[in-house]
Amino acid sequence: MTTVGILGGGQLARMLALSGAPLGLRFLVMDTEPDACAGQFAPLLVGDYRDEAALAEFAGRIDVATFDFENVPAASAEWLAARVPVFPNPRALAIAQDRLAEKTLFRELGIPVPEFAALSTRAELDAALATVGAPAILKTRRLGYDGKGQFRLRSLADADAAWDALGAQADKVGLILEAFVPFDRELSVVAVRGRDGEFRAWPITENWHVDGVLSASLAPARVSDALADAAIAHARALAERTDYVGVFALELFCKDDRLLANEMAPRVHNSGHWTIEGAETSQFQNHLRAVLGLPLGATRMLGHACMLNWIGAMPDAGALLGEAGGHWHDYGKQPRAGRKVGHATLRADDAAELAAALTRVGATLAREAQVAPVVGRLTQP
Amino acid sequence: MTTVGILGGGQLARMLALSGAPLGLRFLVMDTEPDACAGQFAPLLVGDYRDEAALAEFAGRIDVATFDFENVPAASAEWLAARVPVFPNPRALAIAQDRLAEKTLFRELGIPVPEFAALSTRAELDAALATVGAPAILKTRRLGYDGKGQFRLRSLADADAAWDALGAQADKVGLILEAFVPFDRELSVVAVRGRDGEFRAWPITENWHVDGVLSASLAPARVSDALADAAIAHARALAERTDYVGVFALELFCKDDRLLANEMAPRVHNSGHWTIEGAETSQFQNHLRAVLGLPLGATRMLGHACMLNWIGAMPDAGALLGEAGGHWHDYGKQPRAGRKVGHATLRADDAAELAAALTRVGATLAREAQVAPVVGRLTQP
Repeated sequence: MTTVGILGGGQLARMLALSGAPLGLRFLVMDTEPDACAGQFAPLLVGDYRDEAALAEFAGRIDVATFDFENVPAASAEWLAARVPVFPNPRALAIAQDRLAEKTLFRELGIPVPEFAALSTRAELDAALATVGAPAILKTRRLGYDGKGQFRLRSLADADAAWDALGAQADKVGLILEAFVPFDRELSVVAVRGRDGEFRAWPITENWHVDGVLSASLAPARVSDALADAAIAHARALAERTDYVGVFALELFCKDDRLLANEMAPRVHNSGHWTIEGAETSQFQNHLRAVLGLPLGATRMLGHACMLNWIGAMPDAGALLGEAGGHWHDYGKQPRAGRKVGHATLRADDAAELAAALTRVGATLAREAQVAPVVGRLTQP
Repeated sequence: MTTVGILGGGQLARMLALSGAPLGLRFLVMDTEPDACAGQFAPLLVGDYRDEAALAEFAGRIDVATFDFENVPAASAEWLAARVPVFPNPRALAIAQDRLAEKTLFRELGIPVPEFAALSTRAELDAALATVGAPAILKTRRLGYDGKGQFRLRSLADADAAWDALGAQADKVGLILEAFVPFDRELSVVAVRGRDGEFRAWPITENWHVDGVLSASLAPARVSDALADAAIAHARALAERTDYVGVFALELFCKDDRLLANEMAPRVHNSGHWTIEGAETSQFQNHLRAVLGLPLGATRMLGHACMLNWIGAMPDAGALLGEAGGHWHDYGKQPRAGRKVGHATLRADDAAELAAALTRVGATLAREAQVAPVVGRLTQP
């Protein structure tokens, strides 16, 4: 009986456990919160990731470790990796935790990225603005998540305000200025690489964000084969260079059919939730297969799928469950403003059926704005 | 937060919990065994179903109750139903527990059944044989499971041997003699009925048994629309008459395109396991939706699916996981002769792809005999 340890006990750990149960796996989830939602379906060890005694207990009860979030302290990941196999490897995690290291690696691999410059003083911000130009986004190098730790500069005149907002963090986590890309759309590649180097990607996903938080995803994205191939090649290069094992997402901007990499998430990803019902094998099961050295499952799609995120509170389930291809995912979390509490996936055999279902759900739940861009994409000529 | 109580903590309870988690449900499983496999993913209450104190604790911690096996003592189900909502209702459970009541109901509803006669003495066995004829099967009226409590009579000369085998149980559970049906194939209807009376059936499944235990299932079964419609109409009549709520299976024999009902299983059913990956909504999720009064999910298929049961011990997972449509289900049970420890489902977009995958898996696992009848059906002209 193999026990998989998961650092972090949120919805990703929860869906990993639910998806891995049929593989005969046991799980142990570690989280700082005693009510972490993965604990409803897997044993939960409450402890701080920086506490060596807690980590030692965790390591002693598991056969292999993985993560449900990317901001596990690098030192904790390294400490753990010295005791049990850890996938993805802590080096890949460390790169993804640092926007500068990540973007530098993208450039090395020939993956196009928006202009960027590192900085740690007010004077360096001016220099960076001279190089990168405006509009631009000032970000912390580390620990950014869902739009936090970011300041958007519309023009050079915003430099003082940007420094006021983030300058205090410059010493601690470093800052990076990135050119703002006026993209047409946001895409993601969700992909998996096995211990033996086998690489597979699900069809490209198009994503819509609201206030920096994912609102809706559509797969397959309506992109040319050439664009899809290029995006997947970038993801593959990244995985091979970092010897990545497991599922990850590469987020990309797309402007006039040109790709620009935004960031890499070293874990199962919100934009891959549709794979639970919309693909032969879900990102959750394939992550576990990769981590355990099992053969990877097929990433082919079953029709068309749209995922809608529920932020803050769950809507009424009835409208969604009444749809033939409606699938509900309540994470069992307490409602709280801005919190991801669940999602729904609508699956259909063809695009017209999916658009019609989304339109009905949007109307019934008074969420027309959330479904509108997806319906627009599905129904465009 | 709704907590669903499940009496019985085997693989059916386990798959119910895994499937119901996305609905935001909590579970409490009650079983006599502390290592019941559902307990790996849901809180487990160890206790005897006949112990009122244990049942009272169970009832006090749940909002609604259901079953993972049909032999819950009727008195326990009634006791529970006086305290919490119980689905399916104890009356439906009681009918399914009694072969005589069940077959009598089938007849009342115009569902064809093999000849049968109840008996409780040696003399009545002779009378029954005169009516039913031979070959026939002598069965206990209650508590039969997977071929146990049955004796097959090839001719009238076997009457003494049959009485020796089962006569001692005549007083306690009653006996029934059933005509042996030389069927061409075994079919099942897996269906669900909601609290509001809505009824849905998955496509008909063909089943193959070995030594009285299910070995393989194929869906959709290769039957005419007329036969499928008749089978589903029988299932519907049964559900409506018993005011059934939840998933159940109606097992049927088929001889020269004529249906004969065998028995009804008042629970999610082994022959419906393929619905996890092979249908829009699985039998497990629809059972919970029904029990909770939620809208039922679509029962449409996604291509073609074959389920292979693993009895006694799990085979090596590699061959199956290496197939594009291969899905593994290890129940987390200790191996034991005759025990259902897991299953696999192969899903494919067309029948030829499914036959090819089954042939490869059969060869790699040296289980040619298990896959052969399914491959034969898939490839017949």
